[in-house]
Amino acid sequence: MTPAVVQPATQVRLAARPRGQPKLEDFEIATAPVAIPGEGEILVETTYLSLDPALRPRMNEVSAYAGAVPLNATIPSPALGIVLESRSPLHRPGDHVFGMFGWQSHATVQGSEARRIDPERAALPRWLSLLGLSSFTAYVGLVELGRPRPGETVVVSAAAGATGAAVGQIAKILGARAVGIAGGAAKCSAVVDAYGFDACVDYKAADFLEQLDAACPDGVDVDFENVGGDILRAVYDRMNPDGRVIVCGLVSEYSRDDGFLPGPSLWPAVYKSLRIDGFRASRYFDRIPEFVDKALEWSQAGLFTHREHVTEGIEHAPQAFIDMLAGRHFGKAMVKI
Amino acid sequence: MTPAVVQPATQVRLAARPRGQPKLEDFEIATAPVAIPGEGEILVETTYLSLDPALRPRMNEVSAYAGAVPLNATIPSPALGIVLESRSPLHRPGDHVFGMFGWQSHATVQGSEARRIDPERAALPRWLSLLGLSSFTAYVGLVELGRPRPGETVVVSAAAGATGAAVGQIAKILGARAVGIAGGAAKCSAVVDAYGFDACVDYKAADFLEQLDAACPDGVDVDFENVGGDILRAVYDRMNPDGRVIVCGLVSEYSRDDGFLPGPSLWPAVYKSLRIDGFRASRYFDRIPEFVDKALEWSQAGLFTHREHVTEGIEHAPQAFIDMLAGRHFGKAMVKI
Repeated sequence: MTPAVVQPATQVRLAARPRGQPKLEDFEIATAPVAIPGEGEILVETTYLSLDPALRPRMNEVSAYAGAVPLNATIPSPALGIVLESRSPLHRPGDHVFGMFGWQSHATVQGSEARRIDPERAALPRWLSLLGLSSFTAYVGLVELGRPRPGETVVVSAAAGATGAAVGQIAKILGARAVGIAGGAAKCSAVVDAYGFDACVDYKAADFLEQLDAACPDGVDVDFENVGGDILRAVYDRMNPDGRVIVCGLVSEYSRDDGFLPGPSLWPAVYKSLRIDGFRASRYFDRIPEFVDKALEWSQAGLFTHREHVTEGIEHAPQAFIDMLAGRHFGKAMVKI
Repeated sequence: MTPAVVQPATQVRLAARPRGQPKLEDFEIATAPVAIPGEGEILVETTYLSLDPALRPRMNEVSAYAGAVPLNATIPSPALGIVLESRSPLHRPGDHVFGMFGWQSHATVQGSEARRIDPERAALPRWLSLLGLSSFTAYVGLVELGRPRPGETVVVSAAAGATGAAVGQIAKILGARAVGIAGGAAKCSAVVDAYGFDACVDYKAADFLEQLDAACPDGVDVDFENVGGDILRAVYDRMNPDGRVIVCGLVSEYSRDDGFLPGPSLWPAVYKSLRIDGFRASRYFDRIPEFVDKALEWSQAGLFTHREHVTEGIEHAPQAFIDMLAGRHFGKAMVKI
């Protein structure tokens, strides 16, 4: 069988470990020969890259979260692609697949590490947004750990982000009140308008805490935490007895030179019987098919939607990632190759 | 029916809110007429008072934990007593009962608030130690929240205390390794000798962290936390993925003038999928009978024992409480009236 591709792959690599917020110079665009797939492997041409905040801590020298990215290595990332060549019984050329293909135009991976997706069930970019890992994270975090009961109040930070948007909508589907936290009045309005949250509070406003109190007159039963720092503390202070804190991410702390902040005192956890769950969706990946079915059903019923923030061109992935960490996006951030 | 008692009750009251560690002047010994029981009430002569660390935060002006003790009020406390007079169908004179009778020689309470105990099943003080709320707290915290699997490592701080001693023994009964933390080499040896812990580490030793590493070669799966502060952090840093942190108390932080310490960073909770449960045993009081049966069975099998640290005379309750907070006791601290 003749290799279908001979041109070199374009890759985005980690050129330097960022200090604080990443800068363009921390990345490097490079080309490399495409690896010919060996037995069991497939060669994929990527179509869309996912941009995820959880990549940031992995850019540090030491990362306990899924391992540090080595210097000069291609940036790891979930992505979509088309199979160009297959030496795996699991995939055929032309199949659309999802996998950890990284920020590169072509990837050679084990066939077992790619999951087939069906562009007839939902358009390609939806498999990274509505049906992607961010939404899945929201789903499994709420259903398994948050378990909101009808009428309870769920607060989610980074509500305009890919995970937050899904948390609020799934909370509503489960019968709970959904309160978002986002940066800026415009973003807050958009969260309410686009995703149907009951309220969204602007953490940049001088009266943030008063806004939060007004949005949560009965306190907070579930905190789905994506941000950390002062925002986490504000919500934590308002938890009801038996409340659940789902810690999914701490994006406000990822770029601090002096490391992560201490957590809130555990004394309120004692006297309120709070449960705090640190949480990684990878633990639950066997439930992705169940999630995809539900998400499509909810979507068809008009209950679940997702905005996409698409940047075109792999060479713009670094700037798009920097913008996402700074919150200059709305919806799921991705790059179209 | 003629009242059986006419002499005044002796009471220990809260005279002042302690700053830092409580002092004798913060308490006052007083007498008061015994309240004649009304319809549904019983008059109890107390026999043993329980001394519990969780009382300390309730002595502050504001306490979210079971409410602040009002100034000049009798110190609230679990205790044992004998019914002297009953206007409740639930109890007869001569019955031995357990209830929140407080630091006083006589208490008049609702019959429904007292639980009958049987001194033939176990001698009186055992109902505050082996079968008391401290042991019950250990039981329900481990069985419901910690859920150690055979071979896992359970670490408990304040291991020489009433709850800690029970945690280690129940962990062993469940097939786990039990590692205690206590203050001083002598106390540590006693924890191993009296309660059969696999190891006990001295937090006052200069090489505390090395001792802890040596005692937990496979990391920590369950932290049953009674102490907080640096001890909590040391154990938290050693938690294994999927570890469980049961926060029962934070005794090292109760007497701090500047309040409770921040908690540990929640980032390790995210990347290790840790669960942190704040916890109050009162949530599970309906399971006390189940616990008493098991504890007696384990005790008869030689698997579960408890030391008692008994001070005689209600007038010595304040000093005994002060000594207990400072760790100058071994086993369950109580006062015999």
